[in-house]
Amino acid sequence: MPELRLNLIRQEWVIIAREKGKMPEDFVKVKQRKRHPDFQETCPFCPGNESKTPPEVYTIHDGNGWRIRVVPNRFAVLSKEGERTRTNSGLKKGVNGVGIQEVVIETPLHNLTTATMPIEQLKEVIHTHKNRFLEMYKDPRIEHVIIFKNHGSASGTTVEHPHSQVVGVPVTPHQIRSRIESAMRFFYDTGDCLMCKTVSDELSDGTRILFNTEYFVSFVPYAALSPFHIWIFPKRHSGSFADIRPEEIKDLALNLKSTMTMLYYGLAYPDFNYIIRSGKPGHVDSEFIHWYLSIVPRVVTASGFELGSGMYINPLVPEMAAEFLRNVRIQENE
Amino acid sequence: MPELRLNLIRQEWVIIAREKGKMPEDFVKVKQRKRHPDFQETCPFCPGNESKTPPEVYTIHDGNGWRIRVVPNRFAVLSKEGERTRTNSGLKKGVNGVGIQEVVIETPLHNLTTATMPIEQLKEVIHTHKNRFLEMYKDPRIEHVIIFKNHGSASGTTVEHPHSQVVGVPVTPHQIRSRIESAMRFFYDTGDCLMCKTVSDELSDGTRILFNTEYFVSFVPYAALSPFHIWIFPKRHSGSFADIRPEEIKDLALNLKSTMTMLYYGLAYPDFNYIIRSGKPGHVDSEFIHWYLSIVPRVVTASGFELGSGMYINPLVPEMAAEFLRNVRIQENE
Repeated sequence: MPELRLNLIRQEWVIIAREKGKMPEDFVKVKQRKRHPDFQETCPFCPGNESKTPPEVYTIHDGNGWRIRVVPNRFAVLSKEGERTRTNSGLKKGVNGVGIQEVVIETPLHNLTTATMPIEQLKEVIHTHKNRFLEMYKDPRIEHVIIFKNHGSASGTTVEHPHSQVVGVPVTPHQIRSRIESAMRFFYDTGDCLMCKTVSDELSDGTRILFNTEYFVSFVPYAALSPFHIWIFPKRHSGSFADIRPEEIKDLALNLKSTMTMLYYGLAYPDFNYIIRSGKPGHVDSEFIHWYLSIVPRVVTASGFELGSGMYINPLVPEMAAEFLRNVRIQENE
Repeated sequence: MPELRLNLIRQEWVIIAREKGKMPEDFVKVKQRKRHPDFQETCPFCPGNESKTPPEVYTIHDGNGWRIRVVPNRFAVLSKEGERTRTNSGLKKGVNGVGIQEVVIETPLHNLTTATMPIEQLKEVIHTHKNRFLEMYKDPRIEHVIIFKNHGSASGTTVEHPHSQVVGVPVTPHQIRSRIESAMRFFYDTGDCLMCKTVSDELSDGTRILFNTEYFVSFVPYAALSPFHIWIFPKRHSGSFADIRPEEIKDLALNLKSTMTMLYYGLAYPDFNYIIRSGKPGHVDSEFIHWYLSIVPRVVTASGFELGSGMYINPLVPEMAAEFLRNVRIQENE
């Protein structure tokens, strides 16, 4: 019998399509792996081409040049200049499109990805995310900041060079407000933080756990929205990524790299997105907001059913996904 | 200055990326058009291959054979048999995966699409949708029925033969509940049906209208979620598609065909989904539920920004999309 599971954070039903008999291996795209060079002359993010991007707003240097550059997104859809003004005419409700869009160039090397990046580099990427997150929230026009990474064409990017994005928008998205409302309702109903309770339940169950480090735990959610959907939760309750401490940054780098390495070898270099879901800096002490990181390998395509219902069909049982990933053989020195 | 617009039905913000300078023509995929034959021997939906599908549950015949066949989905993820039982263990909330999934084979001809289908045939497709919609709701285990069509690989289907799907699920999706709540709040705030008000506003504005027929109007929404996103609204207030009358079916066929023809020629045969969003038969007399049809040409890919925020970036100004479509030259006899 197939099963529907309720994703409590998203408050949406997921059909776990057990009967389809899909095995984890069915999602491995056997694609001819292109071995990209570590430098590409035409790439605007490669060293030597710094003039092809707007001037950086933040940089990490070492003796040999930059290790990380943050630049305004040349193809920004929001305008950095201007007032945030609302228009309100009957059913037409609008806001001026002010906002900040930055690109984090994560490394000078063209052909790295999160799984293959040295852990020190990944630590600096997370440190940079925190820096830009705090910086953007200083702008009073910014209501919400999203940190995300697109990797590979199925993820919605055309740029190969390892990069992530930090975007500040002048409104609170409905999806975010809706998650906050669910978490708040859960807290007032039960006295518990939904995320803290999820972490302790997952740890004592164990079947969906991937990687349990000092401060973080990665796991396939009970109601994973798609095959190999993964959450990385901080074990310390905190409403905002703004609050991440140096020792936690180091541990998150370890956990994220380990988890992404399972995906990288297990699924043969899949396209993916990851997203940091966080309250604003002012939410640090919230009892019910708890930030986390969500990883979505892009191995399936949404159809009219998902568009029409908002529900998800996950053709892979979450426990099987987790077991498969835990057993991935890591090919060092490949 | 770019602009954010609030989609009142979905209650989500859309960034209208005016500054990106995208023109409607930029979304025309210049793909080598494959001329499919009208019969394909290996296609399970082509005449003569009826044994490759489960036996039909509904058929429209004429003297020469069938014109429409409805069959259970051979790859159903939900089980038609079994009880609907809930499990509720701490954070793990589940429902047995019972449900009904049917495929509507819309025509014997392998190479038609909504735009090229004779209007009589399209009328029978809509009539069939209504029949299956009513039939599924007779099953007390079914809480919600979704009618949708996937066309082309970007829409999430691999089957070429013209078909649509009707799916009955044992829960009310959160996305649906959330839309109903918005419409209810609007009604109690203003005394108006949000959809009726939208129709009258769009008709008097005119800039986003595509096709205004006797009972239906098609238009690009003010806060369209993606390029060429289109709504077709019944002008008569009704909470459920269950209530569509014969003369309205005829008019919807005309409106849908005309609208899809604009997309077909204007965007060079795009992949698309369409979805009928409707209350259940018991919602016919609701003051605030109002069924409609939504068309989503799949010309852009969601990225981490959309996944992370729930917001949409529409790189094409809705008024420009509508103007472009109104000016499409229909190539008859092609």
